[in-house]
Amino acid sequence: MFTENIKQYPSLKHHYNDVLNLINEYDEIIILRHIRPDPDAIGAQLGLKAILQYIFPNKSIAALGEEESSLNYLGRMDPVTTVDDPLVIVVDTAGAGRVDGDIAAGSKVIKIDHHPNNDPYGDINIVETGVSSTSELIFILANLWGFDNDYINDTSARLLFSGIVGDTGRFLFDNTSSMTHRIASELKKFDFDATKDMGLMNRQSISQFRFKGYLIDNFEITDKGVLGVWVPSSVLDEYGLNSNEASLSVNLYREMDEAEIWFMAVEEEDNIRVRLRSKKTVINDVAEAFGGGGHPLASGISLSSSEKIRDLTEALDRKL
Amino acid sequence: MFTENIKQYPSLKHHYNDVLNLINEYDEIIILRHIRPDPDAIGAQLGLKAILQYIFPNKSIAALGEEESSLNYLGRMDPVTTVDDPLVIVVDTAGAGRVDGDIAAGSKVIKIDHHPNNDPYGDINIVETGVSSTSELIFILANLWGFDNDYINDTSARLLFSGIVGDTGRFLFDNTSSMTHRIASELKKFDFDATKDMGLMNRQSISQFRFKGYLIDNFEITDKGVLGVWVPSSVLDEYGLNSNEASLSVNLYREMDEAEIWFMAVEEEDNIRVRLRSKKTVINDVAEAFGGGGHPLASGISLSSSEKIRDLTEALDRKL
Repeated sequence: MFTENIKQYPSLKHHYNDVLNLINEYDEIIILRHIRPDPDAIGAQLGLKAILQYIFPNKSIAALGEEESSLNYLGRMDPVTTVDDPLVIVVDTAGAGRVDGDIAAGSKVIKIDHHPNNDPYGDINIVETGVSSTSELIFILANLWGFDNDYINDTSARLLFSGIVGDTGRFLFDNTSSMTHRIASELKKFDFDATKDMGLMNRQSISQFRFKGYLIDNFEITDKGVLGVWVPSSVLDEYGLNSNEASLSVNLYREMDEAEIWFMAVEEEDNIRVRLRSKKTVINDVAEAFGGGGHPLASGISLSSSEKIRDLTEALDRKL
Repeated sequence: MFTENIKQYPSLKHHYNDVLNLINEYDEIIILRHIRPDPDAIGAQLGLKAILQYIFPNKSIAALGEEESSLNYLGRMDPVTTVDDPLVIVVDTAGAGRVDGDIAAGSKVIKIDHHPNNDPYGDINIVETGVSSTSELIFILANLWGFDNDYINDTSARLLFSGIVGDTGRFLFDNTSSMTHRIASELKKFDFDATKDMGLMNRQSISQFRFKGYLIDNFEITDKGVLGVWVPSSVLDEYGLNSNEASLSVNLYREMDEAEIWFMAVEEEDNIRVRLRSKKTVINDVAEAFGGGGHPLASGISLSSSEKIRDLTEALDRKL
């Protein structure tokens, strides 16, 4: 199905056979991904594991890393065991410093990712920025190895679908291409409950739900449309949430007509973590000026004091 | 593309050429849809108009009905003009009683719909319940008329995509099939800003946004998970919303883990309008017992007094 499209994916075109050859040489394979995993990291990691286990039932393949409990419904990590000289595959991780796990010196490493390839730390680097997600890229890779969906099964289909949903905001963001839907169509031919999984990905406890009430009652917005909300640690305590759980609600403001740029500033132990989002105005330059960074429309900053929030708001306002 | 799948769609298989033959006989065509239109009604109506105008540039084709201002971004209705003996095509409307517009006695009528065909009011009835939306059905129809996407252009692609997004809750509900994504993939090959349109479909004014705060602060939930919220007319006035605008927020509760069934009861002038939703428990039997009806997981009821809300809650609780 994808053979005719392979020119779109130069690193895949050059290396998809090399990857398979290298995997063939090893009996022990470890698959890693980035710290603080999101659905695409877990979907790509466990999806690739399911694909490889399906093709190579006799190889020992382990997915390692710290678990994120809200994503355990997708599948669990393997226990860490010491293996001499495994092949290491790292998915969805732009920089070696963000890998969740140790890579022994001298190990062969395959990097598979969709972020800009500023740190090509793999012996083979399959990096394509034109796909929505690493899960989408892994589907295409498996599709090139076999004939159509030969190497996909219900388990890997479910995992890759969840990864695509995670990184596209359920087909909302403009990284969603015609190809993304084409792949979703192929994955949906397998037997899994996509509606249930998407519900699980978005599910919230009553505490998280009531916290949204706080966010609705306490934001400020400038005339031009820069919206900010301040979440002191006392509020986190009141709703029984940690900073990560609170941050899941940052996209609440996306649907408000008047909000062009918005951020949530959460007081953590020794700094203030700011999640910054924008509908269409590039904001990662402002994030960088404040010591943070990220994507053009979705960035993060750590501030040393709440007084800098006003400066940030003003800097963002000047962008509109 | 769909010729190999046509067996799935018996009414299409039998009638897709009849529809084209009938259209060919007429110079004047009117396209209607149901009252209180949603994105699928408008997307199918204006999408079909764009397709027919593209195939038949010399025919006079009018889309008629009352406008819903929140959907005007998709396109506008045509002014009503008196035409002798037009062909009438009605989309997305299960029963003749819900057609928004008059059908002159003796007119030839084509019905194109995806709801159960309890009222086959057309001279030709193209009714398929296995598709997500009437917009999906119209794409398949146009695809059968031509070769692949020959008869689709940027305008109709955008409209049909919006209709599919509307009726699937943006690919969330389980009416979303492999075919739905396949069609989305074809439509995304055309030039339109899907991300922007999906934003417009979900956009809210600050009033609607703040009203969500009311909904979060004022619901009640039973131990088993029946959630209800009461919206008196004074609250509508406070937030400057009408009953229809308020009802757009009913799906807010879907993401709450603990809510299995939920409803919003809004006080209108002479009755109480209840929107009832469920994650997986069938609830239209309860809706019918209270004089309402609808889909298994999404129904509506008009109650004569607020005292019946307690009875309704109890009846729903017995379902869990």
